[in-house]
Amino acid sequence: MTVTFQQIEQAHRLLADVVQRTPATRAPALSAATGAEVFLKLENLQVTGAFKARGAYVKLNSLAPDARARGVVAASAGNHAQGLAHHAGRMGIDAAIFMPEGTPFTKVRRTEALGATTILAGADFQAAREAALDHAATEGKTFIPPFDDPAIIAGQGTVASEFLIDVPDLDVLIAPVGGGGLMAGCCIAARHLSPAIELIAAQTHQYPSIQGAGHGTTDAASNAPRGITIADGIAVTQAGEITGPIMAAHLSDTILLEEQDIESAVRELVEGQCLVAEGAGAAGVAALLHDAQRFAGRRVGIVVSGGNIDSRLLASVLMRGLVRDGRLVRLRIEISDLPGVLSQVTGLIGAEGGNIVDVHHQRLFFDVPIRRTDLDVTIETVDRAHVRRLIDLLKSHGFEARELANTSL
Amino acid sequence: MTVTFQQIEQAHRLLADVVQRTPATRAPALSAATGAEVFLKLENLQVTGAFKARGAYVKLNSLAPDARARGVVAASAGNHAQGLAHHAGRMGIDAAIFMPEGTPFTKVRRTEALGATTILAGADFQAAREAALDHAATEGKTFIPPFDDPAIIAGQGTVASEFLIDVPDLDVLIAPVGGGGLMAGCCIAARHLSPAIELIAAQTHQYPSIQGAGHGTTDAASNAPRGITIADGIAVTQAGEITGPIMAAHLSDTILLEEQDIESAVRELVEGQCLVAEGAGAAGVAALLHDAQRFAGRRVGIVVSGGNIDSRLLASVLMRGLVRDGRLVRLRIEISDLPGVLSQVTGLIGAEGGNIVDVHHQRLFFDVPIRRTDLDVTIETVDRAHVRRLIDLLKSHGFEARELANTSL
Repeated sequence: MTVTFQQIEQAHRLLADVVQRTPATRAPALSAATGAEVFLKLENLQVTGAFKARGAYVKLNSLAPDARARGVVAASAGNHAQGLAHHAGRMGIDAAIFMPEGTPFTKVRRTEALGATTILAGADFQAAREAALDHAATEGKTFIPPFDDPAIIAGQGTVASEFLIDVPDLDVLIAPVGGGGLMAGCCIAARHLSPAIELIAAQTHQYPSIQGAGHGTTDAASNAPRGITIADGIAVTQAGEITGPIMAAHLSDTILLEEQDIESAVRELVEGQCLVAEGAGAAGVAALLHDAQRFAGRRVGIVVSGGNIDSRLLASVLMRGLVRDGRLVRLRIEISDLPGVLSQVTGLIGAEGGNIVDVHHQRLFFDVPIRRTDLDVTIETVDRAHVRRLIDLLKSHGFEARELANTSL
Repeated sequence: MTVTFQQIEQAHRLLADVVQRTPATRAPALSAATGAEVFLKLENLQVTGAFKARGAYVKLNSLAPDARARGVVAASAGNHAQGLAHHAGRMGIDAAIFMPEGTPFTKVRRTEALGATTILAGADFQAAREAALDHAATEGKTFIPPFDDPAIIAGQGTVASEFLIDVPDLDVLIAPVGGGGLMAGCCIAARHLSPAIELIAAQTHQYPSIQGAGHGTTDAASNAPRGITIADGIAVTQAGEITGPIMAAHLSDTILLEEQDIESAVRELVEGQCLVAEGAGAAGVAALLHDAQRFAGRRVGIVVSGGNIDSRLLASVLMRGLVRDGRLVRLRIEISDLPGVLSQVTGLIGAEGGNIVDVHHQRLFFDVPIRRTDLDVTIETVDRAHVRRLIDLLKSHGFEARELANTSL
């Protein structure tokens, strides 16, 4: 089974009034950083914050009236759930979304706010999925798979057809790949519109779902968890029976990414391009930055596939980035626990241009005449060289100082 | 002196190849939250992250060859500096940017990376500006004002002309106003293209720069600092001699915003629309949210004017938002300092679904037989009701607990 460009064109017409035609924008900061001419397709600006709303609508629209009347079922705590809930709510279709027990309440609430019913079932995603399939079978409802379905693939393929209509002469198209619904659709659209285009899958190395795809694997097997990743949206162990062969036929290459690459890409999008992407959504940008020389001088289109990142996680990514750049540092300074010493130490830091944001005075009482104490000072700094100057200055005044590893910023 | 629509059309043609034609996008989350049909003009995706790059180019382009050869001067630590430095660098024009002493190094570095020379001079912006004017006079260079200049106003006006070409039937246009360069240009463009449109200025209440504008004030007087604001990009005490009368002639209304409104708007853009805006850039969205009923049912266009926000500030805004929503809370719990008690308390919190992210065990030794200690526990929670349930549960087990005000998250 495959999907044709004509199906993607049909999907494009269907979607005209029900989802965003998201912008394809130039990325000046990423272009300057890599020497490539970078364009971003902003599916983080899509309704419900991810491309998933496209395929979900096309699939719901394909259902016969009696199937619509009986309702639909899905298993997802993420963008598939929200995209489906959004359209089902507007189309008056009952939607039951199964999520694993322990799913963060914000994800439950977001999906329910869109009009779906959520059911917490099973210890993990796999168990929730089985409960969803059981429920669909028992109730005569239609199970809506997350990616391995021609209607869904055709819907996601409109991302690439829109992208190439707006930016016709891309040399390369990079998109994140989990189950492969987005990339399979993009492969078909892009090969049709721009036969020579290089098509690159961005994957996290923990979930290289394309390897071995299409060889008798089941959709069920594809979602067993392997490890924690910031890119949970592409944490799929195996691509689908439909998506796998399509990608195998068209993909030029796969770039496997470390967690650190993806975290940096999230930060780069915020700080350089003023865009919020979730980990999976930023994987394409991570692939670009991972191998920038390869793309220098070429016109590179990247799908930023989604933007639903928890605020606490995003704040943490930003702060860790500052620590990594030497722009936020925690120094442990040994001082004598005597009046005036704290003032002297903070005075030295201030004189060297460090902006103190937190002081933790750790009093340890030693059995020695002079009382010693550890002072942990968190400081805004300029860069790594500035941190070294601060430490040297403190040492030259007799204060032993060392940088603490980032633990709980 | 005024600016004509023809000048804005000329600016539009000039800018075609040198700045971004930024997207005008629907804002589904803001629309759902307010009942308005909200469109955003994304000047945070502009080169150098703000609309300022438009006017800066138009002004530089207007200079005669000898003036270009002598170079330009400006006083700014923000978006004007970066916009000017970007184009001057590409046009081979020497640019000297004056910033107050103590300007954060990241701002210096960003401007220098674009090829400008930066000079730290004066204790405040006013003093830096005077040093810049002196330097321009002494060296025969051209001083480029931040807003009160016809070429600059015409350049900024292209924001509205593009917006109304892309979304022709807006009922309302809201833009942030500091010195008024953006809004004056937008007034002229919008009144021409859509005569009945409602034009609304978004201002911080600390800097109501439109009041009394155009009555003998000078550009110099307009930048004296009044108070700290998250919207430093519009922290201007008085609009200009050119921009003031234009706005007075065309503006329908001004909405004055509290700091809290603007901070919430920054967060709403991140969490709801996946967009990063600086405080000034989010002021238009803050105005919409401040008076949502007024805009319900109408087509509202908002200029998101810039996205250059410090990562630490952005992280802090996100964390404070979680605290405000009751999704992150710090409880002070009185416990007996005995083995096993910490485990009991954290067990209760976990059983009620609170996710502990930090524990601070404050040991205070009282002169009483039973040692007491304060435990400060930071917990991820669901909402305010969840926080109350946690406190009630702790109390019912004999642990006095209260919520601490947000201080240093």
